Amino acid sequence: MKKIYLIGIGTGNPEHLTIQAINALKMVNVFFILEKESEKNEDLVKLRKEILQRYLPNEKYRVVVAKIPERKKGGRELEVYKERVSSWRRQKAEIISNLINNKMVDEETGAILIWGDPSLYDGHIEIMNYILKRDMAKFQYDVIPGITSMQVLTAKHKIPLNYIAESIQITTGRRLKESQPDDVKNVVVLLDNYLTYRDFSDTDLNIYWGAYLGTEKEILVSGRLNEVINEIIKTRNEAKKKYGWIMETYILRSEDNEDPRKS
Amino acid sequence: MKKIYLIGIGTGNPEHLTIQAINALKMVNVFFILEKESEKNEDLVKLRKEILQRYLPNEKYRVVVAKIPERKKGGRELEVYKERVSSWRRQKAEIISNLINNKMVDEETGAILIWGDPSLYDGHIEIMNYILKRDMAKFQYDVIPGITSMQVLTAKHKIPLNYIAESIQITTGRRLKESQPDDVKNVVVLLDNYLTYRDFSDTDLNIYWGAYLGTEKEILVSGRLNEVINEIIKTRNEAKKKYGWIMETYILRSEDNEDPRKS
Repeated sequence: MKKIYLIGIGTGNPEHLTIQAINALKMVNVFFILEKESEKNEDLVKLRKEILQRYLPNEKYRVVVAKIPERKKGGRELEVYKERVSSWRRQKAEIISNLINNKMVDEETGAILIWGDPSLYDGHIEIMNYILKRDMAKFQYDVIPGITSMQVLTAKHKIPLNYIAESIQITTGRRLKESQPDDVKNVVVLLDNYLTYRDFSDTDLNIYWGAYLGTEKEILVSGRLNEVINEIIKTRNEAKKKYGWIMETYILRSEDNEDPRKS
Repeated sequence: MKKIYLIGIGTGNPEHLTIQAINALKMVNVFFILEKESEKNEDLVKLRKEILQRYLPNEKYRVVVAKIPERKKGGRELEVYKERVSSWRRQKAEIISNLINNKMVDEETGAILIWGDPSLYDGHIEIMNYILKRDMAKFQYDVIPGITSMQVLTAKHKIPLNYIAESIQITTGRRLKESQPDDVKNVVVLLDNYLTYRDFSDTDLNIYWGAYLGTEKEILVSGRLNEVINEIIKTRNEAKKKYGWIMETYILRSEDNEDPRKS
Protein backbone atom coordinates (compact mmCIF):
# COMPACT_ATOMS: atom_id res chain seq x y z
CA MET A 1 0.00 0.00 0.00
CA LYS A 2 1.17 3.53 -0.76
CA LYS A 3 1.12 6.01 2.08
CA ILE A 4 0.65 9.78 2.00
CA TYR A 5 1.25 12.23 4.82
CA LEU A 6 -0.37 15.64 4.91
CA ILE A 7 2.08 17.40 7.21
CA GLY A 8 1.23 20.69 8.92
CA ILE A 9 4.42 22.76 9.01
CA GLY A 10 3.23 25.80 10.94
CA THR A 11 3.29 29.33 9.69
CA GLY A 12 6.76 30.19 8.55
CA ASN A 13 9.02 29.47 11.49
CA PRO A 14 10.76 26.12 10.88
CA GLU A 15 10.69 25.65 14.67
CA HIS A 16 6.91 25.32 14.52
CA LEU A 17 7.35 21.74 13.35
CA THR A 18 6.35 19.11 15.90
CA ILE A 19 8.41 16.03 16.63
CA GLN A 20 5.54 14.06 15.10
CA ALA A 21 5.91 16.06 11.87
CA ILE A 22 9.68 15.60 11.82
CA ASN A 23 9.32 11.87 12.37
CA ALA A 24 6.85 11.76 9.47
CA LEU A 25 9.29 13.70 7.24
CA LYS A 26 11.88 11.02 7.92
CA MET A 27 9.58 8.33 6.50
CA VAL A 28 9.06 10.14 3.21
CA ASN A 29 10.44 8.91 -0.12
CA VAL A 30 8.89 11.62 -2.24
CA PHE A 31 7.67 15.13 -1.49
CA PHE A 32 5.02 16.51 -3.82
CA ILE A 33 5.16 20.25 -4.27
CA LEU A 34 2.21 21.86 -5.98
CA GLU A 35 2.94 25.25 -7.43
CA LYS A 36 0.58 27.66 -9.08
CA GLU A 37 1.59 28.35 -12.64
CA SER A 38 2.21 32.06 -12.37
CA GLU A 39 2.37 32.93 -8.74
CA LYS A 40 5.39 31.58 -6.96
CA ASN A 41 5.84 32.62 -3.38
CA GLU A 42 9.62 32.71 -2.90
CA ASP A 43 9.24 32.81 0.87
CA LEU A 44 7.25 29.59 0.87
CA VAL A 45 9.75 27.90 -1.45
CA LYS A 46 12.56 29.00 0.85
CA LEU A 47 10.74 27.77 3.95
CA ARG A 48 10.12 24.33 2.46
CA LYS A 49 13.75 24.03 1.41
CA GLU A 50 14.91 25.14 4.84
CA ILE A 51 12.69 22.56 6.56
CA LEU A 52 13.92 19.71 4.41
CA GLN A 53 17.58 20.71 4.75
CA ARG A 54 17.32 21.21 8.47
CA TYR A 55 15.38 18.10 9.43
CA LEU A 56 16.58 15.69 6.72
CA PRO A 57 20.26 16.59 6.37
CA ASN A 58 21.36 13.07 5.42
CA GLU A 59 18.21 11.36 4.28
CA LYS A 60 17.57 10.49 0.66
CA TYR A 61 14.31 11.69 -0.81
CA ARG A 62 12.87 12.86 -4.09
CA VAL A 63 11.08 16.13 -4.71
CA VAL A 64 8.47 16.25 -7.47
CA VAL A 65 7.17 19.67 -8.42
CA ALA A 66 3.86 19.78 -10.25
CA LYS A 67 2.23 22.84 -11.70
CA ILE A 68 -1.34 23.45 -10.68
CA PRO A 69 -3.67 25.71 -12.62
CA GLU A 70 -4.44 29.18 -11.40
CA ARG A 71 -7.68 29.46 -9.51
CA LYS A 72 -10.11 31.73 -11.31
CA LYS A 73 -10.09 35.07 -9.55
CA GLY A 74 -13.04 37.17 -8.60
CA GLY A 75 -16.15 35.53 -7.28
CA ARG A 76 -16.76 37.78 -4.34
CA GLU A 77 -20.24 36.33 -4.34
CA LEU A 78 -20.17 33.36 -2.03
CA GLU A 79 -21.76 30.81 -4.37
CA VAL A 80 -19.53 31.74 -7.30
CA TYR A 81 -16.49 31.61 -5.05
CA LYS A 82 -17.43 28.21 -3.65
CA GLU A 83 -17.95 26.73 -7.10
CA ARG A 84 -14.62 28.10 -8.28
CA VAL A 85 -12.75 26.71 -5.30
CA SER A 86 -14.54 23.42 -5.65
CA SER A 87 -13.73 23.11 -9.36
CA TRP A 88 -10.11 24.07 -8.67
CA ARG A 89 -9.93 21.36 -6.06
CA ARG A 90 -11.25 18.78 -8.53
CA GLN A 91 -8.43 19.78 -10.89
CA LYS A 92 -5.95 19.39 -8.05
CA ALA A 93 -7.42 15.96 -7.28
CA GLU A 94 -6.63 14.90 -10.88
CA ILE A 95 -3.08 16.15 -10.57
CA ILE A 96 -2.44 14.63 -7.15
CA SER A 97 -3.88 11.26 -8.10
CA ASN A 98 -1.63 11.21 -11.18
CA LEU A 99 1.36 11.96 -8.97
CA ILE A 100 0.45 9.15 -6.60
CA ASN A 101 -0.13 6.72 -9.49
CA ASN A 102 2.95 7.62 -11.53
CA LYS A 103 5.58 9.10 -9.25
CA MET A 104 5.71 6.60 -6.45
CA VAL A 105 5.78 2.81 -6.26
CA ASP A 106 4.01 0.49 -3.90
CA GLU A 107 5.10 0.61 -0.25
CA GLU A 108 6.56 4.07 -0.76
CA THR A 109 5.60 7.09 1.31
CA GLY A 110 4.75 10.47 -0.17
CA ALA A 111 4.03 13.77 1.53
CA ILE A 112 2.54 17.18 0.95
CA LEU A 113 3.71 19.95 3.27
CA ILE A 114 0.84 22.12 4.42
CA TRP A 115 1.21 25.71 5.61
CA GLY A 116 -0.42 25.94 9.08
CA ASP A 117 -2.70 23.01 9.91
CA PRO A 118 -4.22 20.71 7.26
CA SER A 119 -7.68 21.03 8.80
CA LEU A 120 -8.01 24.82 8.62
CA TYR A 121 -8.95 26.41 5.27
CA ASP A 122 -6.62 24.18 3.33
CA GLY A 123 -8.49 21.65 1.21
CA HIS A 124 -6.04 18.75 0.93
CA ILE A 125 -8.05 16.57 3.32
CA GLU A 126 -11.13 17.00 1.12
CA ILE A 127 -9.03 16.30 -1.97
CA MET A 128 -7.63 13.08 -0.50
CA ASN A 129 -11.14 11.92 0.48
CA TYR A 130 -12.39 12.84 -3.00
CA ILE A 131 -9.64 10.80 -4.68
CA LEU A 132 -10.17 7.79 -2.43
CA LYS A 133 -13.92 7.83 -2.81
CA ARG A 134 -13.59 7.67 -6.60
CA ASP A 135 -10.75 5.13 -6.61
CA MET A 136 -8.64 7.59 -8.60
CA ALA A 137 -5.61 6.22 -6.74
CA LYS A 138 -4.98 3.63 -4.05
CA PHE A 139 -3.24 4.72 -0.88
CA GLN A 140 -3.84 5.37 2.76
CA TYR A 141 -3.12 8.69 4.35
CA ASP A 142 -2.49 10.36 7.68
CA VAL A 143 -2.82 13.95 8.80
CA ILE A 144 -0.21 15.57 11.05
CA PRO A 145 -1.46 18.71 12.84
CA GLY A 146 0.53 21.94 12.66
CA ILE A 147 0.55 25.30 14.43
CA THR A 148 -1.90 27.74 12.83
CA SER A 149 -1.55 31.47 12.26
CA MET A 150 -4.33 32.16 14.77
CA GLN A 151 -2.32 30.43 17.49
CA VAL A 152 0.76 32.46 16.61
CA LEU A 153 -1.38 35.60 16.57
CA THR A 154 -2.68 35.06 20.10
CA ALA A 155 0.72 33.94 21.40
CA LYS A 156 2.41 37.07 20.08
CA HIS A 157 -0.29 39.44 21.26
CA LYS A 158 -0.43 37.55 24.58
CA ILE A 159 -4.18 37.25 24.51
CA PRO A 160 -6.41 34.21 24.89
CA LEU A 161 -8.59 33.06 22.03
CA ASN A 162 -11.46 32.95 24.49
CA TYR A 163 -12.14 34.61 27.79
CA ILE A 164 -13.92 32.54 30.42
CA ALA A 165 -16.69 30.43 28.91
CA GLU A 166 -16.63 32.58 25.77
CA SER A 167 -17.18 31.25 22.24
CA ILE A 168 -15.02 32.15 19.30
CA GLN A 169 -15.83 32.11 15.65
CA ILE A 170 -13.28 31.41 12.93
CA THR A 171 -14.30 32.84 9.61
CA THR A 172 -13.19 34.44 6.36
CA GLY A 173 -13.28 38.05 5.18
CA ARG A 174 -16.05 37.02 2.82
CA ARG A 175 -18.24 35.73 5.67
CA LEU A 176 -17.36 38.62 7.96
CA LYS A 177 -18.66 40.99 5.33
CA GLU A 178 -22.13 39.48 5.77
CA SER A 179 -22.08 39.93 9.56
CA GLN A 180 -23.82 42.62 11.53
CA PRO A 181 -21.54 44.56 13.88
CA ASP A 182 -23.66 43.45 16.86
CA ASP A 183 -22.94 39.82 16.06
CA VAL A 184 -19.19 40.33 16.14
CA LYS A 185 -18.12 39.51 19.69
CA ASN A 186 -15.00 37.46 19.20
CA VAL A 187 -14.04 36.51 15.68
CA VAL A 188 -10.81 35.23 14.13
CA VAL A 189 -10.61 36.19 10.47
CA LEU A 190 -8.44 34.28 8.02
CA LEU A 191 -8.03 34.62 4.25
CA ASP A 192 -9.16 38.23 4.15
CA ASN A 193 -7.67 40.06 1.20
CA TYR A 194 -10.30 42.77 1.22
CA LEU A 195 -9.50 44.69 4.42
CA THR A 196 -12.98 43.81 5.60
CA TYR A 197 -12.23 45.30 9.04
CA ARG A 198 -12.86 48.67 7.40
CA ASP A 199 -16.58 47.82 7.49
CA PHE A 200 -16.41 47.81 11.30
CA SER A 201 -14.37 50.94 11.88
CA ASP A 202 -17.20 52.84 13.53
CA THR A 203 -17.77 50.19 16.20
CA ASP A 204 -16.21 49.77 19.64
CA LEU A 205 -14.35 46.65 18.55
CA ASN A 206 -10.71 45.97 19.32
CA ILE A 207 -8.45 44.43 16.72
CA TYR A 208 -5.45 42.17 17.16
CA TRP A 209 -3.81 42.08 13.77
CA GLY A 210 -0.79 40.24 12.43
CA ALA A 211 0.85 39.64 9.07
CA TYR A 212 3.55 37.16 8.03
CA LEU A 213 3.04 35.52 11.43
CA GLY A 214 5.90 33.31 12.52
CA THR A 215 8.27 34.59 9.83
CA GLU A 216 11.05 37.13 10.10
CA LYS A 217 8.74 39.62 8.39
CA GLU A 218 6.14 39.40 11.17
CA ILE A 219 4.19 42.59 11.92
CA LEU A 220 1.77 43.07 14.83
CA VAL A 221 -0.66 45.87 15.52
CA SER A 222 -3.39 45.97 18.18
CA GLY A 223 -5.75 48.46 19.74
CA ARG A 224 -9.14 50.01 19.40
CA LEU A 225 -10.02 49.39 15.74
CA ASN A 226 -11.00 52.97 14.98
CA GLU A 227 -7.71 54.21 16.44
CA VAL A 228 -5.33 51.81 14.70
CA ILE A 229 -7.08 51.11 11.41
CA ASN A 230 -5.14 53.68 9.43
CA GLU A 231 -1.86 52.33 10.76
CA ILE A 232 -2.89 48.81 9.77
CA ILE A 233 -3.93 49.81 6.25
CA LYS A 234 -0.73 51.79 5.70
CA THR A 235 1.44 49.02 7.14
CA ARG A 236 -0.16 46.25 5.09
CA ASN A 237 -0.09 48.21 1.84
CA GLU A 238 3.59 49.06 2.26
CA ALA A 239 4.46 45.48 3.21
CA LYS A 240 2.51 43.98 0.33
CA LYS A 241 4.28 46.31 -2.08
CA LYS A 242 7.66 45.47 -0.60
CA TYR A 243 7.31 41.68 -0.44
CA GLY A 244 4.87 41.02 -3.28
CA TRP A 245 2.49 39.06 -1.03
CA ILE A 246 0.81 39.32 2.31
CA MET A 247 -0.94 36.90 4.63
CA GLU A 248 -3.01 38.59 7.32
CA THR A 249 -4.81 37.18 10.34
CA TYR A 250 -6.77 39.15 12.88
CA ILE A 251 -9.17 38.95 15.75
CA LEU A 252 -12.04 41.37 16.25
CA ARG A 253 -13.23 41.40 19.82
CA SER A 254 -15.63 43.51 21.82
CA GLU A 255 -14.34 44.92 25.11
CA ASP A 256 -14.73 42.19 27.61
CA ASN A 257 -15.33 42.60 31.27
CA GLU A 258 -14.73 38.92 31.76
CA ASP A 259 -11.06 39.69 31.31
CA PRO A 260 -9.64 39.27 34.85
CA ARG A 261 -7.18 42.06 34.02
CA LYS A 262 -10.09 44.42 34.42
CA SER A 263 -11.68 42.91 37.50
CA MET B 1 14.69 40.35 34.51
CA LYS B 2 12.96 37.06 35.24
CA LYS B 3 11.44 35.23 32.31
CA ILE B 4 8.45 32.89 32.19
CA TYR B 5 7.42 30.62 29.33
CA LEU B 6 3.88 29.34 28.96
CA ILE B 7 4.58 26.29 26.84
CA GLY B 8 1.84 24.48 24.91
CA ILE B 9 2.64 20.77 25.09
CA GLY B 10 -0.14 19.36 22.91
CA THR B 11 -2.71 16.87 24.00
CA GLY B 12 -1.00 13.86 25.45
CA ASN B 13 1.39 12.67 22.79
CA PRO B 14 4.92 13.84 23.70
CA GLU B 15 5.57 14.06 19.95
CA HIS B 16 3.13 16.97 19.74
CA LEU B 17 5.86 19.24 21.08
CA THR B 18 7.26 21.69 18.57
CA ILE B 19 10.97 22.41 18.17
CA GLN B 20 10.18 25.89 19.48
CA ALA B 21 8.70 24.34 22.64
CA ILE B 22 11.67 22.01 23.09
CA ASN B 23 14.11 24.90 22.67
CA ALA B 24 12.15 26.82 25.30
CA LEU B 25 12.26 23.82 27.67
CA LYS B 26 16.04 23.85 27.38
CA MET B 27 16.19 27.43 28.67
CA VAL B 28 14.21 26.66 31.81
CA ASN B 29 15.72 26.70 35.30
CA VAL B 30 12.50 25.96 37.14
CA PHE B 31 9.24 24.31 36.14
CA PHE B 32 6.19 25.30 38.13
CA ILE B 33 3.60 22.59 38.43
CA LEU B 34 0.23 23.59 39.78
CA GLU B 35 -1.80 20.74 41.16
CA LYS B 36 -5.31 20.79 42.47
CA GLU B 37 -5.44 19.74 46.08
CA SER B 38 -7.58 16.66 45.73
CA GLU B 39 -7.74 15.73 42.10
CA LYS B 40 -4.47 14.50 40.67
CA ASN B 41 -4.54 13.29 37.12
CA GLU B 42 -1.91 10.56 37.01
CA ASP B 43 -1.87 10.61 33.22
CA LEU B 44 -0.99 14.29 33.16
CA VAL B 45 1.72 13.81 35.78
CA LYS B 46 3.15 10.94 33.73
CA LEU B 47 3.04 12.99 30.51
CA ARG B 48 4.89 15.93 32.08
CA LYS B 49 7.53 13.61 33.49
CA GLU B 50 7.91 11.86 30.15
CA ILE B 51 8.34 15.18 28.34
CA LEU B 52 11.00 16.43 30.72
CA GLN B 53 12.90 13.13 30.70
CA ARG B 54 12.74 12.81 26.96
CA TYR B 55 13.66 16.33 25.92
CA LEU B 56 15.92 17.30 28.84
CA PRO B 57 17.83 14.08 29.51
CA ASN B 58 20.99 15.81 30.72
CA GLU B 59 19.87 19.31 31.63
CA LYS B 60 19.67 20.50 35.20
CA TYR B 61 16.39 22.04 36.28
CA ARG B 62 14.23 22.36 39.34
CA VAL B 63 10.61 21.34 39.64
CA VAL B 64 8.43 23.20 42.12
CA VAL B 65 5.01 21.74 42.79
CA ALA B 66 2.42 24.08 44.27
CA LYS B 67 -1.02 23.13 45.43
CA ILE B 68 -3.86 25.19 44.03
CA PRO B 69 -7.28 25.31 45.64
CA GLU B 70 -10.16 23.35 44.21
CA ARG B 71 -12.45 25.38 41.99
CA LYS B 72 -15.91 25.54 43.45
CA LYS B 73 -18.10 23.08 41.59
CA GLY B 74 -21.56 23.66 40.28
CA GLY B 75 -22.40 26.96 38.68
CA ARG B 76 -24.17 25.67 35.64
CA GLU B 77 -25.57 29.15 35.35
CA LEU B 78 -23.18 31.11 33.17
CA GLU B 79 -22.75 34.12 35.44
CA VAL B 80 -22.14 32.01 38.52
CA TYR B 81 -19.69 29.88 36.60
CA LYS B 82 -17.79 32.88 35.25
CA GLU B 83 -17.46 34.44 38.67
CA ARG B 84 -16.22 31.15 40.13
CA VAL B 85 -13.60 30.69 37.41
CA SER B 86 -12.59 34.31 37.72
CA SER B 87 -12.16 34.10 41.48
CA TRP B 88 -10.25 30.84 41.14
CA ARG B 89 -7.93 32.53 38.66
CA ARG B 90 -7.28 35.36 41.10
CA GLN B 91 -6.27 32.77 43.68
CA LYS B 92 -3.96 31.19 41.13
CA ALA B 93 -2.49 34.61 40.36
CA GLU B 94 -1.54 34.96 44.05
CA ILE B 95 0.09 31.56 44.06
CA ILE B 96 1.96 32.04 40.78
CA SER B 97 3.24 35.49 41.70
CA ASN B 98 4.53 34.06 44.99
CA LEU B 99 6.33 31.32 43.08
CA ILE B 100 7.91 33.86 40.75
CA ASN B 101 8.94 36.09 43.66
CA ASN B 102 10.25 33.38 45.95
CA LYS B 103 11.27 30.37 43.91
CA MET B 104 13.42 31.95 41.20
CA VAL B 105 16.17 34.55 41.22
CA ASP B 106 16.78 37.36 38.77
CA GLU B 107 17.83 36.34 35.25
CA GLU B 108 16.36 32.87 35.75
CA THR B 109 13.74 31.34 33.46
CA GLY B 110 10.62 29.60 34.72
CA ALA B 111 7.95 27.71 32.83
CA ILE B 112 4.45 26.38 33.12
CA LEU B 113 3.55 23.50 30.82
CA ILE B 114 0.11 23.94 29.29
CA TRP B 115 -2.02 21.09 28.00
CA GLY B 116 -2.99 21.93 24.39
CA ASP B 117 -2.43 25.57 23.45
CA PRO B 118 -2.15 28.38 26.03
CA SER B 119 -4.66 30.54 24.13
CA LEU B 120 -7.56 28.10 24.13
CA TYR B 121 -9.66 27.78 27.30
CA ASP B 122 -6.67 27.79 29.55
CA GLY B 123 -6.41 30.99 31.57
CA HIS B 124 -2.66 31.32 32.22
CA ILE B 125 -2.30 34.18 29.73
CA GLU B 126 -4.98 36.15 31.58
CA ILE B 127 -3.34 35.28 34.89
CA MET B 128 0.06 36.53 33.69
CA ASN B 129 -1.47 39.78 32.43
CA TYR B 130 -3.34 40.15 35.73
CA ILE B 131 -0.14 39.72 37.77
CA LEU B 132 1.84 42.15 35.60
CA LYS B 133 -0.87 44.78 35.59
CA ARG B 134 -0.90 44.79 39.39
CA ASP B 135 2.87 44.59 39.84
CA MET B 136 2.43 41.44 41.89
CA ALA B 137 5.71 40.19 40.39
CA LYS B 138 8.24 41.48 37.90
CA PHE B 139 9.00 39.36 34.86
CA GLN B 140 8.48 39.15 31.18
CA TYR B 141 6.81 36.22 29.53
CA ASP B 142 6.40 34.46 26.22
CA VAL B 143 3.75 32.10 24.92
CA ILE B 144 4.67 29.02 22.87
CA PRO B 145 1.75 27.61 20.85
CA GLY B 146 0.86 23.93 21.09
CA ILE B 147 -1.32 21.47 19.20
CA THR B 148 -4.93 21.53 20.43
CA SER B 149 -7.36 18.67 20.89
CA MET B 150 -9.55 20.04 18.08
CA GLN B 151 -6.64 19.73 15.65
CA VAL B 152 -6.00 16.16 16.74
CA LEU B 153 -9.73 15.43 16.45
CA THR B 154 -9.90 16.59 12.83
CA ALA B 155 -6.59 14.94 11.92
CA LYS B 156 -7.73 11.57 13.28
CA HIS B 157 -11.20 11.75 11.74
CA LYS B 158 -9.64 13.06 8.50
CA ILE B 159 -12.06 15.92 8.20
CA PRO B 160 -11.43 19.62 7.73
CA LEU B 161 -12.45 22.09 10.42
CA ASN B 162 -14.15 24.09 7.67
CA TYR B 163 -15.45 23.26 4.26
CA ILE B 164 -14.97 25.90 1.56
CA ALA B 165 -15.57 29.41 2.87
CA GLU B 166 -17.36 27.96 5.89
CA SER B 167 -17.19 29.43 9.40
CA ILE B 168 -16.60 27.40 12.51
CA GLN B 169 -17.51 28.14 16.06
CA ILE B 170 -15.50 26.96 19.04
CA THR B 171 -17.56 26.79 22.18
CA THR B 172 -18.23 25.03 25.46
CA GLY B 173 -20.93 22.59 26.47
CA ARG B 174 -22.40 25.37 28.57
CA ARG B 175 -22.75 27.70 25.58
CA LEU B 176 -23.93 24.94 23.27
CA LYS B 177 -26.78 24.27 25.67
CA GLU B 178 -28.12 27.78 24.93
CA SER B 179 -28.01 27.24 21.14
CA GLN B 180 -30.96 26.50 18.91
CA PRO B 181 -30.48 23.42 16.71
CA ASP B 182 -30.90 25.57 13.58
CA ASP B 183 -27.89 27.66 14.60
CA VAL B 184 -25.62 24.66 14.87
CA LYS B 185 -23.92 24.33 11.47
CA ASN B 186 -20.32 23.61 12.38
CA VAL B 187 -19.34 23.75 16.03
CA VAL B 188 -16.32 22.45 17.94
CA VAL B 189 -17.23 21.78 21.56
CA LEU B 190 -14.62 21.71 24.28
CA LEU B 191 -14.95 21.35 28.05
CA ASP B 192 -18.29 19.60 27.89
CA ASN B 193 -18.82 17.37 30.91
CA TYR B 194 -22.57 17.30 30.52
CA LEU B 195 -23.05 15.24 27.33
CA THR B 196 -24.76 18.28 25.84
CA TYR B 197 -24.94 16.56 22.44
CA ARG B 198 -27.91 14.67 23.88
CA ASP B 199 -29.93 17.89 23.45
CA PHE B 200 -29.41 17.61 19.68
CA SER B 201 -30.12 13.94 19.19
CA ASP B 202 -33.31 14.50 17.18
CA THR B 203 -31.55 16.67 14.57
CA ASP B 204 -29.81 15.72 11.33
CA LEU B 205 -26.42 16.68 12.72
CA ASN B 206 -23.31 14.56 12.35
CA ILE B 207 -20.90 14.16 15.24
CA TYR B 208 -17.15 13.63 15.17
CA TRP B 209 -16.28 12.69 18.72
CA GLY B 210 -13.01 11.91 20.42
CA ALA B 211 -11.78 11.32 23.96
CA TYR B 212 -8.23 11.22 25.36
CA LEU B 213 -7.09 12.59 22.01
CA GLY B 214 -3.41 12.10 21.29
CA THR B 215 -2.92 9.64 24.15
CA GLU B 216 -2.73 5.87 24.07
CA LYS B 217 -6.28 5.79 25.43
CA GLU B 218 -7.67 7.69 22.42
CA ILE B 219 -11.22 6.76 21.36
CA LEU B 220 -12.96 8.01 18.21
CA VAL B 221 -16.59 7.72 17.15
CA SER B 222 -18.29 9.45 14.24
CA GLY B 223 -21.54 9.28 12.35
CA ARG B 224 -25.07 10.60 12.28
CA LEU B 225 -25.59 11.80 15.86
CA ASN B 226 -28.88 10.00 16.35
CA GLU B 227 -27.29 6.72 15.18
CA VAL B 228 -24.11 6.83 17.27
CA ILE B 229 -25.18 8.70 20.38
CA ASN B 230 -25.82 5.58 22.43
CA GLU B 231 -22.45 4.18 21.49
CA ILE B 232 -20.78 7.45 22.53
CA ILE B 233 -22.57 7.61 25.88
CA LYS B 234 -21.78 3.99 26.66
CA THR B 235 -18.15 4.36 25.58
CA ARG B 236 -17.54 7.54 27.56
CA ASN B 237 -19.20 6.24 30.71
CA GLU B 238 -17.18 3.04 30.62
CA ALA B 239 -13.94 4.92 29.91
CA LYS B 240 -14.54 7.46 32.64
CA LYS B 241 -15.19 4.68 35.12
CA LYS B 242 -12.08 2.81 34.03
CA TYR B 243 -9.63 5.73 33.98
CA GLY B 244 -11.16 8.03 36.59
CA TRP B 245 -11.23 11.01 34.20
CA ILE B 246 -12.26 11.88 30.68
CA MET B 247 -11.53 14.74 28.32
CA GLU B 248 -13.91 14.87 25.36
CA THR B 249 -13.88 17.01 22.24
CA TYR B 250 -16.38 16.88 19.44
CA ILE B 251 -17.64 18.59 16.34
CA LEU B 252 -21.32 18.89 15.46
CA ARG B 253 -21.83 19.56 11.78
CA SER B 254 -24.78 19.64 9.47
CA GLU B 255 -24.55 17.61 6.26
CA ASP B 256 -22.64 19.72 3.86
CA ASN B 257 -22.95 19.66 0.14
CA GLU B 258 -19.88 21.82 -0.12
CA ASP B 259 -17.88 18.72 0.63
CA PRO B 260 -16.26 17.86 -2.71
CA ARG B 261 -16.57 14.20 -1.76
CA LYS B 262 -20.25 14.59 -2.53
CA SER B 263 -19.94 16.65 -5.68
